Amino acid sequence: MNVTSSTDNLRDVARTLFDTLQAASDDGVGITRDGYGPGETRALELLENFASTEGFHAERDDAGNLTVTANGPCSREPILIGSHVDSVPQGGNYDGAAGIVAGLLCLVRFRNEGIEPHVPIKVLALRGEESAWFGRANIGSRALFGKLSTEDLLLRKRESTATLQDCMRAAGANVDAIAAKQSLLAPRTIAAYLELHIEQGAVMVSRGFQTAIVPAIRGNMRHKQICCIGEAAHSGATPRWLRRDSVFAIAELLTRLDEHWCVLLERGLDLVVTAGIIGTNPAEHAVSRVPGEAMFSLEVRSQSQETLEAFYRLIQTECEAISIARRVRFEFDRRVDSAPARMNEQIVSALLECSRSLGLPVELIPSGPGHDASVFANNGIPSAMIFVRNEHGSHNPKEAMALDDFMAGVELLYAACQDPKWLR
Amino acid sequence: MNVTSSTDNLRDVARTLFDTLQAASDDGVGITRDGYGPGETRALELLENFASTEGFHAERDDAGNLTVTANGPCSREPILIGSHVDSVPQGGNYDGAAGIVAGLLCLVRFRNEGIEPHVPIKVLALRGEESAWFGRANIGSRALFGKLSTEDLLLRKRESTATLQDCMRAAGANVDAIAAKQSLLAPRTIAAYLELHIEQGAVMVSRGFQTAIVPAIRGNMRHKQICCIGEAAHSGATPRWLRRDSVFAIAELLTRLDEHWCVLLERGLDLVVTAGIIGTNPAEHAVSRVPGEAMFSLEVRSQSQETLEAFYRLIQTECEAISIARRVRFEFDRRVDSAPARMNEQIVSALLECSRSLGLPVELIPSGPGHDASVFANNGIPSAMIFVRNEHGSHNPKEAMALDDFMAGVELLYAACQDPKWLR
Repeated sequence: MNVTSSTDNLRDVARTLFDTLQAASDDGVGITRDGYGPGETRALELLENFASTEGFHAERDDAGNLTVTANGPCSREPILIGSHVDSVPQGGNYDGAAGIVAGLLCLVRFRNEGIEPHVPIKVLALRGEESAWFGRANIGSRALFGKLSTEDLLLRKRESTATLQDCMRAAGANVDAIAAKQSLLAPRTIAAYLELHIEQGAVMVSRGFQTAIVPAIRGNMRHKQICCIGEAAHSGATPRWLRRDSVFAIAELLTRLDEHWCVLLERGLDLVVTAGIIGTNPAEHAVSRVPGEAMFSLEVRSQSQETLEAFYRLIQTECEAISIARRVRFEFDRRVDSAPARMNEQIVSALLECSRSLGLPVELIPSGPGHDASVFANNGIPSAMIFVRNEHGSHNPKEAMALDDFMAGVELLYAACQDPKWLR
Repeated sequence: MNVTSSTDNLRDVARTLFDTLQAASDDGVGITRDGYGPGETRALELLENFASTEGFHAERDDAGNLTVTANGPCSREPILIGSHVDSVPQGGNYDGAAGIVAGLLCLVRFRNEGIEPHVPIKVLALRGEESAWFGRANIGSRALFGKLSTEDLLLRKRESTATLQDCMRAAGANVDAIAAKQSLLAPRTIAAYLELHIEQGAVMVSRGFQTAIVPAIRGNMRHKQICCIGEAAHSGATPRWLRRDSVFAIAELLTRLDEHWCVLLERGLDLVVTAGIIGTNPAEHAVSRVPGEAMFSLEVRSQSQETLEAFYRLIQTECEAISIARRVRFEFDRRVDSAPARMNEQIVSALLECSRSLGLPVELIPSGPGHDASVFANNGIPSAMIFVRNEHGSHNPKEAMALDDFMAGVELLYAACQDPKWLR
């Protein structure tokens, strides 16, 4: 598509904002904006300066997040356009920041075109989204809904002795209210939450999509460690029928799960399965030993909790069958779940409709990684996301979003806000 | 079977010899008799004392090994009854020592019964069989055939700065002759080599065999490290069709190889396949990362070089197919081979015949681990092995050979030597 001339004028604004953020966050290797720390604060201040210079109204909420509106307090429930300011250590410039810049550009455009949007727009620059800093994701958004526990507040910052509550207090958050799990943002005071974000996978690059709409954020089911326990034996002296080989058992399990995965995909279900870690015990390593013990991690993700549960039952069934056939046993550590978050169907439909009108891809791509949008959605706020094409994934300095693609995403976001029929 | 009363009288001698060796080699955890070191030397001296006390003739050969004969120099080519004196660190009392004690008991029995054997018997207590000490197996037997290289002689002893040649010299070996690769034992001067050894696997325990005959010592083909290289990716954001997952690729490879293995076993071939080590790169470990790189070790053993080669071709074919299907590549390190050693068919048949006469199992069990017998066989000396049942494998303090089983093995060895029709 060709972006309209009005949006086109905003390209320079966008480029300047990204460059300013980049310069302030460059760590020599990539971008580092530490959640609830100096790097994130510096970036927030730059965004705040920009808002003030443009004549907007900027303030901090009780979780230390930055909000920007065109004219101060909103006359009615606003649409929030949000994303996060922080990055992972040595990350990229667009993961998070793109969504905030997109929101600010929408405000600028409404102002430039002299349009009062039907529904007020509030841009939300969230803090502490990346779990890399405190081992907890979506801190800034969870705090808004009273969803941080006492344990969370005592988490220590990466490579530091400071606790989360220390860092939040230093960032100006109302830690007492957060510790009391007060709701800092009543869901009924918000019309909707929209988030533009770079895609963190390679689907859009592979399929040539500039933009796409997110139907859901995948939930996941994880075991950090599943041990397979058989019996060590001399490789030369032990025939196959006497073996209790943990590695062949895990190999067969993963192969069977892969076959199930293929079948479920063919049936149209959404599913990804990953064994990111596998290993025999280094203390027992020998080329000529039948490995008595090995471990692997297992992660299953889907937009559907039902699919997650169905696949989990398949895992258990296959483990039982292999345990019997190969005389091994599987020991699972604690299962850790993260629920899928469905995006609001009306908004998703509206975004697809806007995409069609603008000549952008009318395509749905589920999000694998979590986003603040899932916190808003799971707290009862109608939410949706726009993905923008991005090369080389995220969480690394090589992430690469073309400005053209970004501006197409902004055009789509603007169109959805300009005439939010989906709210009626 | 019931051992004859004559052999039965030897039980006490056997028990005393094993107990003496055990007491001298106890390291607090298991048995340690370091090859070409003080532990092995102490054990050799105990055996030498026993021989002298019994009135036998004991001497050391040019490799430092101990030889024992009834009456000094042999009148014609003797049958060697040998095995090794050394153990692994924290090993068991029977791995090696059993074969030497068995030989000595045969000498005692011939003497006690006043029988001059048709063919002279020479007991050979070999040094340095275990690779644990210098990273090289069968040192004492290889030295006899001029088969130690300059590199071998410069190998450092485990947890020491001493070289093999230092240790051999200290043990009284003729290092100059060994370094010159002189033959210290002309194969034509030996009628046969017989070795009794505990089984190091669990086949005999599982099947209830006191003794068995070894048709061959399995050769092997090893890769210490095969790397599978795909591409790391975000587990949530990367659908199956975009993945280049190294762990699923290895899992499929091992599963396919396991299927081939089963088929080949059903066709009657001798084969064991082991992936003793597997692992993703710890530096990249993350539950939510599609693993871009993983490695495994692969070892294939068979009595038949042909089977080894055929299976190696299957490995290559499967790697190629999986590389294409999963867009990964496999990188093999250097293939290391150890040739199978066939035992002498006439002796094997004779031992089976003796087993039948004695009411012992008429069963063939290939040896997985290597033995000095393979050095003798591969240097042109007709060789054979008797396995004795043993629980809990070897190379650990828990190895457990019942004295009854051992005495049955001695009876078999004695029978084979008493009337060696197989030599004619």
